[in-house]
Amino acid sequence: MAQQLTLLGTGLMGSALASCYLNRGVAVTVWNRSPGRCAALVKNGAQAAPSLVSALEANSLVLVVLLDYSVFRSVMEGHEHLIAGRDFINFMTGSAKDATELQAYINSQGGHYLEAAIEAYPDDIGRDSTLIHYSGPKDIWSRHKPLLQLPGAASRWIGELASAANVLDAAMAGAFYNTGIGAFLEALDFAGKAGVGIEPLEDCLDYFLELLKTELTAVIKHHKSNDYRTDQATLSIYVAAVKSWRQTMLDCGQRASLFTANLHCMEMAVAEGRGHLGIAATYASHLQAVGQIR
Amino acid sequence: MAQQLTLLGTGLMGSALASCYLNRGVAVTVWNRSPGRCAALVKNGAQAAPSLVSALEANSLVLVVLLDYSVFRSVMEGHEHLIAGRDFINFMTGSAKDATELQAYINSQGGHYLEAAIEAYPDDIGRDSTLIHYSGPKDIWSRHKPLLQLPGAASRWIGELASAANVLDAAMAGAFYNTGIGAFLEALDFAGKAGVGIEPLEDCLDYFLELLKTELTAVIKHHKSNDYRTDQATLSIYVAAVKSWRQTMLDCGQRASLFTANLHCMEMAVAEGRGHLGIAATYASHLQAVGQIR
Repeated sequence: MAQQLTLLGTGLMGSALASCYLNRGVAVTVWNRSPGRCAALVKNGAQAAPSLVSALEANSLVLVVLLDYSVFRSVMEGHEHLIAGRDFINFMTGSAKDATELQAYINSQGGHYLEAAIEAYPDDIGRDSTLIHYSGPKDIWSRHKPLLQLPGAASRWIGELASAANVLDAAMAGAFYNTGIGAFLEALDFAGKAGVGIEPLEDCLDYFLELLKTELTAVIKHHKSNDYRTDQATLSIYVAAVKSWRQTMLDCGQRASLFTANLHCMEMAVAEGRGHLGIAATYASHLQAVGQIR
Repeated sequence: MAQQLTLLGTGLMGSALASCYLNRGVAVTVWNRSPGRCAALVKNGAQAAPSLVSALEANSLVLVVLLDYSVFRSVMEGHEHLIAGRDFINFMTGSAKDATELQAYINSQGGHYLEAAIEAYPDDIGRDSTLIHYSGPKDIWSRHKPLLQLPGAASRWIGELASAANVLDAAMAGAFYNTGIGAFLEALDFAGKAGVGIEPLEDCLDYFLELLKTELTAVIKHHKSNDYRTDQATLSIYVAAVKSWRQTMLDCGQRASLFTANLHCMEMAVAEGRGHLGIAATYASHLQAVGQIR
């Protein structure tokens, strides 16, 4: 396992990663556009590189934790000759296209590229339970696996496609987790406006999270078996209930934005003839792709 | 505890409730608009009432599990004199206004009214963990509590306001749980279109559900303390990530309806000057109601 690395970008997340490595005896060379933000890490044993060039020259393994892809591209301008032979691990959040394009850029200069998506907050870095998804050429992952798992022991490589980590991040952290938080905030806002308050929601939160786990596991089973039949609540039954709930929300001045967006997706599915199936059949693209709907 | 009751409506949920009572030795008189649907329950020991009148005359405790509020109102027409002195427990899903109006109607005829919201599927009826929320006059709840907890031992009374159970149902089952399922379905649909598939999402589902539990607990804490500051991800940081994720979703032909609705709510909060706060500050009505925002 490599015992030294270079880390570009020492914001909240970059600093958390650097500290984690320093605390575990890995030699870390840090560089930041504003050098002042490296001071705390230097006290903790990091080497502060006086320039991007010296930062890159220091190690063949480079962790990129800058603000975004365009910042990375702009600071690399004129230093492309330092890319060759180096392994770049990109921790910046970007689209699938961003990852694919950055990989092409690094490869065209003779460098190697692995994408990383951190599914955690800075405070979680270094914990056994913390998960970072890596994607791209498996040999880069294999070369650095023990080192890349240090910030989160639950971390794993998910595929050769460089963009896979970004896609999974957008799906789970964005579409599911973030929207899930939004849905709960909408519920809190509504309950406040309707005079019920926070406490009753708090009291049954664990119950509904358990229910959610059960249902999402069932949803996965429906998708895997391509069998969307149910003997419990059908999409049509859900739509009837959801319309009534939505009225309650609108009646007390709630926008119900997420709720309404979800209702429209379900109504569209019913209009397309899937009302007799379970809620897992709301989205049709997967169903069409696999052919028939039972 | 009452040992006998009348149950109106023997669809999936009504039958599940009736079976639960019969299995526990409670005498149940059932009535349904289509009498045929009572046959299985009669085999299990239920009394099938030949008419709504005889069903109501049989007991002073009446569980209403008909399709919706308008069906109940139409079958009651001409039988209002049978309402006086009876306790009606309404298990139908409706809006807060529906509950308030139905309570007024029952009370105006000399009857008593309790609202119920079943937070479970028919299959879950009778389990220790199953939750039914009841709201309305506490003396009705107290009179029948052991009986009303039989279909779900976790059941509880949440307040005098008859509509409270419906509000909590709309908030937790509708706005949170149902939208949460929708958010996961959107994530699955996107991952399929982006060529990543179901398995990577399945593999990290437990991880994100745990993360969601932690964050929702934090959200409640923010609301209770009226302190929305964070030293982790601010709303502005979330919006930057969410925009990038959204682009990935749109790029591969996903509608991203829930995701976009959530992004708009967050962007609105940033535009209103809450970008430096945590994600709990997305909705403003609660913040305005309590006064200041730190």
